[in-house]
Order: sequence, then structure tokens, then C-alpha cells
Amino acid sequence: MKTYYFDNNATTPVSERVWQTMEPFLKSEYGNPSSLHHRGRAPAKALREARIQVAQLLGAADDREILFTSCGSESNNTAILSCLSTNPSKKQFVTSSVEHSSIRKLGRNLSGQGYDVVEVGVSTQGFLLMDELKRVISDQTAVVSLMLANNETGALFPIDEIGSLLRERGILFHVDAVQAVGKYSLNVKSSPIDFLSLSAHKLYGPKGVGALYVRQGVPFKSFVVGGGQERGRRAGTENVAGIAGLGAACELALSDLPQEIDRLKKLRALFEDSLGEKVPGIEINGDLYRRLPTTRNVRFPGVDAEALMMALDQKGICVSSGSACMSGSHEPSHVLKAMGLSDEEANSSIRFSFGRFTSEQDIREVVPMIRETLDYFKEVERNSVAGSRKAPR
Amino acid sequence: MKTYYFDNNATTPVSERVWQTMEPFLKSEYGNPSSLHHRGRAPAKALREARIQVAQLLGAADDREILFTSCGSESNNTAILSCLSTNPSKKQFVTSSVEHSSIRKLGRNLSGQGYDVVEVGVSTQGFLLMDELKRVISDQTAVVSLMLANNETGALFPIDEIGSLLRERGILFHVDAVQAVGKYSLNVKSSPIDFLSLSAHKLYGPKGVGALYVRQGVPFKSFVVGGGQERGRRAGTENVAGIAGLGAACELALSDLPQEIDRLKKLRALFEDSLGEKVPGIEINGDLYRRLPTTRNVRFPGVDAEALMMALDQKGICVSSGSACMSGSHEPSHVLKAMGLSDEEANSSIRFSFGRFTSEQDIREVVPMIRETLDYFKEVERNSVAGSRKAPR
Repeated sequence: MKTYYFDNNATTPVSERVWQTMEPFLKSEYGNPSSLHHRGRAPAKALREARIQVAQLLGAADDREILFTSCGSESNNTAILSCLSTNPSKKQFVTSSVEHSSIRKLGRNLSGQGYDVVEVGVSTQGFLLMDELKRVISDQTAVVSLMLANNETGALFPIDEIGSLLRERGILFHVDAVQAVGKYSLNVKSSPIDFLSLSAHKLYGPKGVGALYVRQGVPFKSFVVGGGQERGRRAGTENVAGIAGLGAACELALSDLPQEIDRLKKLRALFEDSLGEKVPGIEINGDLYRRLPTTRNVRFPGVDAEALMMALDQKGICVSSGSACMSGSHEPSHVLKAMGLSDEEANSSIRFSFGRFTSEQDIREVVPMIRETLDYFKEVERNSVAGSRKAPR
Repeated sequence: MKTYYFDNNATTPVSERVWQTMEPFLKSEYGNPSSLHHRGRAPAKALREARIQVAQLLGAADDREILFTSCGSESNNTAILSCLSTNPSKKQFVTSSVEHSSIRKLGRNLSGQGYDVVEVGVSTQGFLLMDELKRVISDQTAVVSLMLANNETGALFPIDEIGSLLRERGILFHVDAVQAVGKYSLNVKSSPIDFLSLSAHKLYGPKGVGALYVRQGVPFKSFVVGGGQERGRRAGTENVAGIAGLGAACELALSDLPQEIDRLKKLRALFEDSLGEKVPGIEINGDLYRRLPTTRNVRFPGVDAEALMMALDQKGICVSSGSACMSGSHEPSHVLKAMGLSDEEANSSIRFSFGRFTSEQDIREVVPMIRETLDYFKEVERNSVAGSRKAPR
């Protein structure tokens, strides 16, 4: 059965070029990059190259601003804890109500440790309530952490505007760009951002490697401590193959970013138009404009999203009813709830996320299959209602 | 030029079987293991299998006692911080003077946060001073962290004896077994150990993945927080390929552990005998018996170890003058210093570490090359002394 992979926000396939870049470091070039003998040379060079490739995709001023981590969650944890630790007199942490669990859960932990943790709300379109943000930040705010692009709706926050506001107030700014990097044009050098998180497996790289941008001159405290790797900023023998793969993924993303964004926008338009035509009555969660081209969150009124997801899976279609990191939790999406959706509305919503390997043909094939599945659902429901009418008392 | 890789304590080559196990998860099986659709299934299964393979190598009672991390340093950090966090009334952390930097540096940080951090000393043979340990532990001790096998000398600490002592006193015990796993027979079920760290790249697995054994029933607090991965114990999308590789490496180690240990002991004996014969006057750092079969720390009196290391590298021989994590620090080894060696003695010591891919032939070829190099050093020195005599004033 053909797979229609419409869950690129959960994770992406590894690009062939990425994989080819990784391969030597899992075979012949097994050395430890810290080793001073010849076996350490190629791995050390791979780290240097990857650091430059990541810096270039982000538009960083210096590759020393990039440090490698094991995942987006580690990058997020590292950034926030570093900001709090280097600003011990400031006891407030501000974030939003639609962040990833690695920020929200950390916030809950910090709350229990005496920090004032504030989650700024969003509009029904999924946009940050700027007035609320302005109201809550104060001299006590150590750091504000916000997503660039939401993982469930694709909604984009106005990072530059927020960053400028925070810089005026002397507040550090962390941007969780895990869903945006490689799908959105970034220039951290000119943006008022102090920390930025990314993860390789969201941009056609391997799982198990991420990076954190730390603006030069911003005080930093390590999360994983030990050896002198990453200029003393992140201990542990480096995931050389994974880091080389992340570098290759960044290079690939940079090579055709504007064209790929255009292509994805066309795909998304095709998807929305044909789905709207085939399945009347659907609703779009979130704004139609300020959002990533990769993500569409669709509400199917009256339909159980988990049942729909599983039925589509039977046809080879991979979609998600929320963040993969929250799957199995059976809770309605906190993102959709924050946008004002009811539990029932949230639980009838499906995230479709497109990527580099999604084709027009895929979309043309999938839309009728969604329609068929929904027709089948209606049929089952009719029979069951009819059946219950006939049922003896 | 042929490589003679005698630096297996820094990192090991990846076994072919490990690599073959990883490959599908970097190619076709790219799904997120948390995804509920069909693309999530093979990755989720790979995690389950790897967990069992790690548990079996360690002799764990239950595979739920294993959690995957990104490296040995993260495992070490996680264990210690968890013990301190779950025992907030106890303010003492006890370790030894010969631990890895991920324990020592953490200790220094904790010291600055008001913890009483005690480093128990070692004998001239590199063994823990048991009387000192007994004297320093108290009702205030939250956790004791010790290496099973030292990375620089291979010295083995009597983990079972220490664990029993600590258990009687109600003190948690973390064992850093990064250098020992796969080279030493373990049975955590019957050993009085609460936490145990390991790293894949020390046992022919990939870099960027480790594991932490957490005994069932022992309170635990997460280090990386966020999503519900690892039953809520370690957030972040799992390094599926790396974890599958770690599992395969553990299975491989278990399949021939006694034979491989025997083979390595013979190799080491051959190395010591022939080196002793070819190079009179060398000294062995550490005890000859209670140590790993993989590691030999040799002192070449009057020789600069870094110069020797580099000269051997020119002949394709990879050795180390200390831990790879400390390379470039130009400090004499803290392990050798703790054993009572002077700076000069420590700086004339070289670590030779053998592994699965070291052959008898390698050793027969390398020993004369070491002799040649030392002869060349003497020749250069003679000429330089003669030269300086002739030098005009």
C-alpha cells in the first residue's frame, strides 16, 4: 500500500543527501572528534562544517553562535534554564498558551519552584494577544519564550515585533523555531532574538539531534555539564553522524528555500480548494494568511478526529490529531482550546502537514479518499441510528 | 597507511550489525514512534526491542528500568540531579577523585549551590579508599556516584561491596558504567545499584545515544522535560536509529561477552609482555589485576606523552594521553594525579585501550613501532644535547 505522508510536522523523511553525509561517520570515520590523533580529524571537520551550515541557514553572524543538542526539547529546556540561571534576580518567565510541551511542562516545574510563570493567550485565529504580552512583562521578566510557527496550526507569531519590544525592556527572548526552520526565511543576525531552537528531524534530517542559537555576548549556562565539547557549552561526545546530517539538511533547505515555499503554498492551496469542494462544511482552524505553508488544521464538524485518523491510516494516509509528543494523552489539543474551541471541536480536528516529498498527485489522490471515509462514517452512523430504532426495548 | 586503533576507551568503531540495524530508520522507516498511524509502528517496535536488549545485557529485572538518553554525560547528570531533587532534605553528594568530568563538573556546580560535595580519594593503585568513603557518608548523603571501571586506568571499583554498604545506610547509589558495559559482566538485578549510566559509542554503537538504568521503585525526576516519551521520564523525539543501534550493540556484546573478555585479556598480556621486553623501564599506572581487560595506562619515564602520542599518530597508531573529553586541556590527568603521580609522571603516561577489532597481529606490529619511536626520541635528544654543546655562545 502506498503511504501518503501528511504528517511532516511530527517528523520528516530523511533526505538522501542527508543520509549520504551521515554514512561515513557510522562506518569508517568512527573517531572521537576530541581525539588529537588522525582518527579525530574527519569527525572534527564534520562538526565545523555542520556548524557553518546551520549558521548560514539561520543567518547567524558567527558559527560559534550555534551549539548542538540532542533535540528541540533539550534546546528549549537549555535556553530557558540558562536565562533564569544567568538572571537570578528576575523571577518571571513569560510564554504563551500554545507552546510545545517542552516549554509548558518546564513552566509548570518552574512554577513549583517559586517562579511566576505567565502564559499569554491567543486570539481565535491563533495569534498572540500582543496587548496581554505588553501588560504582563515587567522588570521581573527574565525571559519570554514563544514559537515562531505553531506546530498544530502553523500560525506565525510576529517575532521581530515582539523581539524589539523585549529588547527595549532588557528582556531576553527565546524563539522555538523547531517547526519553522527550513520552511521559513530567517535572519537571526538582524532579528532581535537571543536564543533560537531547532531540530534536525523536522527538516529532513535525523532524529536525535538539534541545535540552539545563542547570540554572541548573551550570558549562557550549560544544561548538560561535563567535558569541554561545544566550547564548554554542551558536554557529551558529539553525535557526529547526526550533526553532519543536520548540517546537510540545513544546506539543502537553504539551497531552494524560496522555491520550496512557493511549491508548498501551491500544494496547500490545491489541498484546501479541493477538500473544500469535496467535503462541504469543514472549518479551518487558524488564520488563512500568517501561517506556515506546510500546515493545515481542519475541523470536520461532528466527526471524531481519532476515528478519522485511524480510518485514513487504513488507506495509507498519515495524519495527526495533534502533536506527536502529546499522542496517546487523549486530551483535546491545548492549542485549539486556547483558540477558544470547545473540547468537541478540538476533538474533531485533524492536522495535515505537507513537506518536501508531498506531491500534487498525492493531494489529488488523498482528497477523494477523505471524502469516501467521511461518507462511510455517515453510512455507519445512519445504520446504527436505524438499528437502534429497530432495537427491541 | 594502516590505522592501529588503540583508543577504544575514547570511542569505538561501529559494528557492522549495529549499522545494519540502524539503516532502515535513517531511510524508509522514518516515522515518529509517537505517531499513531502506520508510519509510527516500526520505530515504536525498534524502541521496545532495544529496551529489552539493553535490559538483558545489564541483567535488569524489567525493561521499563531502562531509559534512553543522548549520551553518558546526560545519563550521569540525570541520575545525580534526580537523586538530589527527590531527596531535598539531604545536602551531601559523594563521589571520587577519579570520576568523569560529567560528574566532577556537576559536583563543582552543586558545590556553588550550597551542596556539600565530597570526593573520596584513591590508592596509588587507583582503588577507592573504602575507609574514607565509610567516614564521609552520613544521614545527609543523598547519593554516591562512582565509576565501575575507570576510563583512564581501567581500575574496577568494588561496586557490590560499596552498594551493600550504602543500601544499609539508605543512601542512593549511581554507577557510571560507561567504560564497563559490554566489557564486564553485569547483573543489576542482584547488585545493590539504583542508577547506572552507559553510552552506545563505547560498545560499538553510534555516538549520540546513551541509557540510564533506574531501579524500579526508586523515585525519579526528569532532566529533559516536555513530551511523554520514555513514559514521561525523558522528553524529546527519540533518536530511533541510534537507540536501535544501541540495542544491537548490547545484543552483540551479550552474545560473546565471556569469550571476548578472555580474548582481550590475552591481547593485553601479549601487549604488556612484549612492550616490557622491547621497552625496559616503563611503568604501569594502576593495579595489574582488578581492572578492565581493555585498558592499559603506561608511563614512559622522561618522555613527553603528548609528543609520543603525536609521533605514534604519524605511524598510524591511535592512542591517548588522557580522556578524550579532556583533550586539549593541557592539564595533567586528574586520575593519575589522584593516584599520587607527579605532574611530570602524569604527563609521561599514555593510555592504550583495546577492543573488539584489535588483533594479535596489531599488537605484534605496534610494539616495535613504539620502540622505534622512543629510540628516535633518544636520538633527537642526544643530538640536541650534543648540538647545544657545540653551539657558539
